[in-house]
Amino acid sequence: MIPVGVVGARGFVGGELLRYLLQHPHLHVAYVTSDTQAGAPVAASFPSLHGLTNLTFSQFDAEEAAASAELLFFALPDGQAMQHSPAVLAAGKKVVDISGDFRVRDRATYEQWYRREHVSPHLLPEAVYGLPELHPEVREARLVANPGCYPVAMLLALAPLVSRGLARPGGVVVDAKSGVSGAGARVGMSEEYSFPAINENFRAYGMTGHRHIAEVEQELAHLQPGGNEWRITFTPHLLPITRGILATCYVDLTEDVNAPALTALYREFYARAPFVHVQDAPPEVHHTAGTNRCILSVTVDARTRRAICLSAIDNLGKGAAGQAVHNANLMLGLEETAGLTGGALWP
Amino acid sequence: MIPVGVVGARGFVGGELLRYLLQHPHLHVAYVTSDTQAGAPVAASFPSLHGLTNLTFSQFDAEEAAASAELLFFALPDGQAMQHSPAVLAAGKKVVDISGDFRVRDRATYEQWYRREHVSPHLLPEAVYGLPELHPEVREARLVANPGCYPVAMLLALAPLVSRGLARPGGVVVDAKSGVSGAGARVGMSEEYSFPAINENFRAYGMTGHRHIAEVEQELAHLQPGGNEWRITFTPHLLPITRGILATCYVDLTEDVNAPALTALYREFYARAPFVHVQDAPPEVHHTAGTNRCILSVTVDARTRRAICLSAIDNLGKGAAGQAVHNANLMLGLEETAGLTGGALWP
Amino acid sequence: MIPVGVVGARGFVGGELLRYLLQHPHLHVAYVTSDTQAGAPVAASFPSLHGLTNLTFSQFDAEEAAASAELLFFALPDGQAMQHSPAVLAAGKKVVDISGDFRVRDRATYEQWYRREHVSPHLLPEAVYGLPELHPEVREARLVANPGCYPVAMLLALAPLVSRGLARPGGVVVDAKSGVSGAGARVGMSEEYSFPAINENFRAYGMTGHRHIAEVEQELAHLQPGGNEWRITFTPHLLPITRGILATCYVDLTEDVNAPALTALYREFYARAPFVHVQDAPPEVHHTAGTNRCILSVTVDARTRRAICLSAIDNLGKGAAGQAVHNANLMLGLEETAGLTGGALWP
Amino acid sequence: MIPVGVVGARGFVGGELLRYLLQHPHLHVAYVTSDTQAGAPVAASFPSLHGLTNLTFSQFDAEEAAASAELLFFALPDGQAMQHSPAVLAAGKKVVDISGDFRVRDRATYEQWYRREHVSPHLLPEAVYGLPELHPEVREARLVANPGCYPVAMLLALAPLVSRGLARPGGVVVDAKSGVSGAGARVGMSEEYSFPAINENFRAYGMTGHRHIAEVEQELAHLQPGGNEWRITFTPHLLPITRGILATCYVDLTEDVNAPALTALYREFYARAPFVHVQDAPPEVHHTAGTNRCILSVTVDARTRRAICLSAIDNLGKGAAGQAVHNANLMLGLEETAGLTGGALWP
Repeated sequence: MIPVGVVGARGFVGGELLRYLLQHPHLHVAYVTSDTQAGAPVAASFPSLHGLTNLTFSQFDAEEAAASAELLFFALPDGQAMQHSPAVLAAGKKVVDISGDFRVRDRATYEQWYRREHVSPHLLPEAVYGLPELHPEVREARLVANPGCYPVAMLLALAPLVSRGLARPGGVVVDAKSGVSGAGARVGMSEEYSFPAINENFRAYGMTGHRHIAEVEQELAHLQPGGNEWRITFTPHLLPITRGILATCYVDLTEDVNAPALTALYREFYARAPFVHVQDAPPEVHHTAGTNRCILSVTVDARTRRAICLSAIDNLGKGAAGQAVHNANLMLGLEETAGLTGGALWP
Repeated sequence: MIPVGVVGARGFVGGELLRYLLQHPHLHVAYVTSDTQAGAPVAASFPSLHGLTNLTFSQFDAEEAAASAELLFFALPDGQAMQHSPAVLAAGKKVVDISGDFRVRDRATYEQWYRREHVSPHLLPEAVYGLPELHPEVREARLVANPGCYPVAMLLALAPLVSRGLARPGGVVVDAKSGVSGAGARVGMSEEYSFPAINENFRAYGMTGHRHIAEVEQELAHLQPGGNEWRITFTPHLLPITRGILATCYVDLTEDVNAPALTALYREFYARAPFVHVQDAPPEVHHTAGTNRCILSVTVDARTRRAICLSAIDNLGKGAAGQAVHNANLMLGLEETAGLTGGALWP
Repeated sequence: MIPVGVVGARGFVGGELLRYLLQHPHLHVAYVTSDTQAGAPVAASFPSLHGLTNLTFSQFDAEEAAASAELLFFALPDGQAMQHSPAVLAAGKKVVDISGDFRVRDRATYEQWYRREHVSPHLLPEAVYGLPELHPEVREARLVANPGCYPVAMLLALAPLVSRGLARPGGVVVDAKSGVSGAGARVGMSEEYSFPAINENFRAYGMTGHRHIAEVEQELAHLQPGGNEWRITFTPHLLPITRGILATCYVDLTEDVNAPALTALYREFYARAPFVHVQDAPPEVHHTAGTNRCILSVTVDARTRRAICLSAIDNLGKGAAGQAVHNANLMLGLEETAGLTGGALWP
Repeated sequence: MIPVGVVGARGFVGGELLRYLLQHPHLHVAYVTSDTQAGAPVAASFPSLHGLTNLTFSQFDAEEAAASAELLFFALPDGQAMQHSPAVLAAGKKVVDISGDFRVRDRATYEQWYRREHVSPHLLPEAVYGLPELHPEVREARLVANPGCYPVAMLLALAPLVSRGLARPGGVVVDAKSGVSGAGARVGMSEEYSFPAINENFRAYGMTGHRHIAEVEQELAHLQPGGNEWRITFTPHLLPITRGILATCYVDLTEDVNAPALTALYREFYARAPFVHVQDAPPEVHHTAGTNRCILSVTVDARTRRAICLSAIDNLGKGAAGQAVHNANLMLGLEETAGLTGGALWP
């Protein structure tokens, strides 16, 4: 068993990460922190994990973290992992950062979208964008930037088209819908996430300026033959469910292709990706709940020559904690699917 | 009090129509039919209306219908109103048809999208598309085709842009999301609309071929200066709520405009439309529940030169029964808002 | 139109009260207060009421209140109406208090359950418990204590049995379940009412000590022939819905009666109560949403000689705002059902 | 790996059983049947299990079943396992029956509550009621009757009180609330379980005559010192959630005890029960979702001398499939918790 630590384990992502890790066949949670809950038992914060752990939250200390674990998961708000990572890496340990700190490789682009100075820019060149389906070099990384939840859904939906040059840069619209847990710590602190405000309701938010656009455009440029600059339109919406993202991606096609050909392309593209499932029917988000799975389908609107790519994930699974475990498995030389083989709850 | 009738009153739309009509200051429900419930009290089918009516369902009979009421609402499945309307109209009475039978003016287009022969094509030229904000001639009509629920949301969102030539035909994508009641009678007969199949779930359906496309493209061509042919991409999705539609419309702009200018344009366009409310913030569907209201917002994604127009309605209100009452008010010379002034339930 | 005022109109009850009052045929909202929103338009707090009102919130001032309106609704937290009522009453105006301040007639009992000194004990003798089905003297009252939401459901369910001496004092258990809006202002301020904490969840709360017990035991003693002291067991639970209460009342019977006899008794007891509907089938809370209706059913468990009485209301309707309007109608000599005739939304 | 089979695997319980078994460290699913899906891949019926199994449904055949597996789970409608079990047992294999066929030991009582002749009454004496916390003899059984979902929740809540003689027979009322998946196969076939009929709604059903009463009264008599006859009042309700039961049990106490003493008693009673967790706060059903866990709390209403015992389970977990795996583990000599150690999803 390899010791790992979870820094900032009190939130939705931290709790889900613990759920995966406490069942993991090769990883052992040796260190867990929460600044507000330091000294309290983990199970008091997560009755859902009762009986599975006797762990107690610590106050974060970089030295103690590095001494306790081979790999640290940072599940902290934006801006903190970039402060703590250098010490942990210097001690020879690995980092999976679930915040946005290391996702955008270009420092100026980062600072423009995040409106914050990057305090560890020297680490940006080596940070690997942790979507292993597109970045196999995760296996060799010591610092992995776990992708945003929306970007995971979008990029897996768009990658096959973009990498074959079938998508017109400038011709991509992503209409995405997320469950409430995607809002993270804000959920408990604001009337707008109270039950009566969400229940029987639906709305868009964060129009035209969501930070996740930065990492998606970076990755699309990386995928596109020739590497053009990308500009996408992205609109997130808030679903009255707890978990799950569906991204509906509209793509102006550069050549005439039909749905069966595209579906075949997607199946081939993800043939060796154990967590990506391509199907003919539109995916349902509930089929991903509690898993690290992404379900994709693609069709063509022949009348308007657009592809419509649909992507479903659990925002806390493939969109956060499951993805982090997948990255850790690869970084530590373990079986890619270790600890991630459970099915979704149905119904 | 003017006597009206509801033909096919047992479904979701029929029930909502009765709820509006039983409170209407100038209309009186004189005739209600349901072939499966003929002879039974209306309140037995709608406990929600208990104490409000002693009506009993009849078996539909065109002669009796015309004798009982000045105006008939047809809330029947597609294909039936076109059989029954001629007799009712011949008797000098008016018709609001809530099915798709008279929405598409071009017979060939109708038959292509609906895969059914039109048995009353002689009535198509006089049928008015019942969206009064775009068709004031509803006031003079004797046969009104109540629009589809999705088209109401989309057309009100797109009309100001299209009528000013600001939208590129071919450059419109509509991503729409509807509550389950939009599926109508199918809801009670299929596992796919059972609670466990919908709850905590979300999915797209009817990809690329939804019938509502036909009427939307017809109306956009009507609105557009010059009257180009239109082709839109439209994807409906199923929300885990009972009522409400949000349509997110992406429009390639033909010139540079900013969000405040577009918002001003929308406010002006709908200045005399009592049921359309333009606001700065993205609309929430719950604010329309139980009303005939449409809430709109518009913004511009300057990076991609697209407008994003958001439209929220209650699919059973402005998307069906409320709209039908609005049309009836106009056809009968009543105050436009009569019987439609109630607020939404909040929370 | 009679001018009325709503003091503390920003909450769930205040908003629902405005929704009823803005449609009322004989009442006119002349005065609305919110200390936190003073100066802001009412429609900004309630998008659900957009287009229905141009009112602006005032800061509460007793003199201004009394000058503006014939009757004041107090929708304030416990402890405030007892401070403000004397001035309003002294000015010759009437008061419907929706808080708990005047529900318990015995000062000592009040202070024991509410753990607060009563600052206007001289008004307790004249305050009428505002459940008109049991207290017709509401018509003559100038100060009415609108009942708690749970007590409305329970008392209407129990009254026929208790008033006939069919219930064993000491033999009553009430298991009640409420939607989240019943928690009022706390909802927006606590993680425990956030969507993820409520959705797909269910729990009991406030075990054995809920304040509503006090008013229920007072009213049962009043109903019971001979006027015994009552002790009931009451457990509230939190439903993952926004509106609605179902109270399941278990009653040890003092004699052998069967279900049809009890149902007949209930029908007779409520024969002249326009808002109470007795039916054979168990009531569903959704049939009361948005209305002032109470739906009752009663059955007998012959094996254990218990009656099981079921009662459904909308906690914001018959449980708060609808009830308040009903009381006001009676106090002002209006038709009992004025402004309260709308049906429930279905589905 | 020990081969097991699931007979009738297409339903909610069958699917959940497969989810547990496909992750089980010592059990191997060798045989799966569905009469309606015979020949089709299991993953086509359960997209939630995609990638976890290549199994295909068979048509049930007792000989093939017995040849394929050491233990068969019957997840069939009532009345079928009693037909098929004799052949399987005769072939030397073991049976866990999840239907009601073998839960009631007394044939006459069975036939009275189930209104059906028992075709294998000779097996009733050896069938063990499969609640291992109360029946450790499950370890030696070859035929186990998996308990009903409601009885699991109730019996675990009541057992400590009843076994110590603290509960008055005749003085027990159970008010239970279940998620929709508890209705099983009916859910897909009836309008009453459609999303709009359940959402934002709540109701009681099956008043006074639910079959589960029979097994509960049998087990209470078994637990009670002296073995009195028991009569309980039991009312089930339908929650607008997919999974979970909360049973609120009201018990007339035979002596004065306080809440801490009862909580201590419960903790001691379940000290060696790995799936039962006693806590001070009222349990929440969501903390059990996807697990075999039962969470209990107990308090005392001193004013009425009643204990209130609360019990939360996942109706598909401890209430069905998880319980079945627990029983199988014991019958096959495996570690009691094997395959059942996963935490609940939170949020």
